[in-house]
Amino acid sequence: MEPHIDVITLAVSDLERSLEFYRDGLGLESCELVGTEYPGDDLTPAGAAAMFKLAGGLMLMLYPRSELAKDANIALASAQSGEFSIGHVVPSRADVDALLARAEDAGATLTDQPHDRPWGIYSGYFRDLDGHLWEVIWNPGRVPAPPAAADPGASTA
Amino acid sequence: MEPHIDVITLAVSDLERSLEFYRDGLGLESCELVGTEYPGDDLTPAGAAAMFKLAGGLMLMLYPRSELAKDANIALASAQSGEFSIGHVVPSRADVDALLARAEDAGATLTDQPHDRPWGIYSGYFRDLDGHLWEVIWNPGRVPAPPAAADPGASTA
Repeated sequence: MEPHIDVITLAVSDLERSLEFYRDGLGLESCELVGTEYPGDDLTPAGAAAMFKLAGGLMLMLYPRSELAKDANIALASAQSGEFSIGHVVPSRADVDALLARAEDAGATLTDQPHDRPWGIYSGYFRDLDGHLWEVIWNPGRVPAPPAAADPGASTA
Repeated sequence: MEPHIDVITLAVSDLERSLEFYRDGLGLESCELVGTEYPGDDLTPAGAAAMFKLAGGLMLMLYPRSELAKDANIALASAQSGEFSIGHVVPSRADVDALLARAEDAGATLTDQPHDRPWGIYSGYFRDLDGHLWEVIWNPGRVPAPPAAADPGASTA
């Protein structure tokens, strides 16, 4: 397997509500609603999903939990935290606090106060509307690349 | 929030076993065991994690489920599929079949036979050793960028 991940798809219970959370609440602006022309049925997943283009060509998709279960041919289960976390690196300690506050304002839940971790980072977690964990990280030993530099193909993707 | 994701951390029940699955079974070679100097305790998460460097500066981490729960200050729960999926785009239909076969050989479970989806891709899902979903995708409308071109910063990361 070549070392790349192209899409991260999060299962959501309410696509519109989650789209608003990420687009309007958190400010992920490069967003598109795709696949609405595929209505699906009891066996075939519907296609509607929210797609966010991220740096490096990565796509973040929001997709109804019921449709992901159909698409992957697995049993539908209720939401659960702790299967994974998404790490988002910011340039300063204050940026961690600010983004966590913004997420909370947008309806996310902080799991704790942000704090220094034994391995030298300062971070805090929020759970999105479906419980998915995001860790907002300041790593004094690593300054994140500016988004423009990290995303040379954004304008042509 | 700037549009980037820097780390995807998967909760695993057996770090060594999952490291072998991804490194030896699937062939993700750029791998490092990190954080082993942080033993943790009942309240403090241990630091040991497997880190894979991917294209575009993205990192894939494998981290014990128990330690992720402590780190995020959430209740520990048993493994569950369907919270998310990771999409991995390959250059051809045959590559989908080949990678799914390789994953199955390495101990993953296919959820179905790969097939054409209504929205024009050919794909199949496997569950890794902890149930995490990977969708292996051939999209006739999109040829994946070669890993080298997608990862300008790899040599300096």
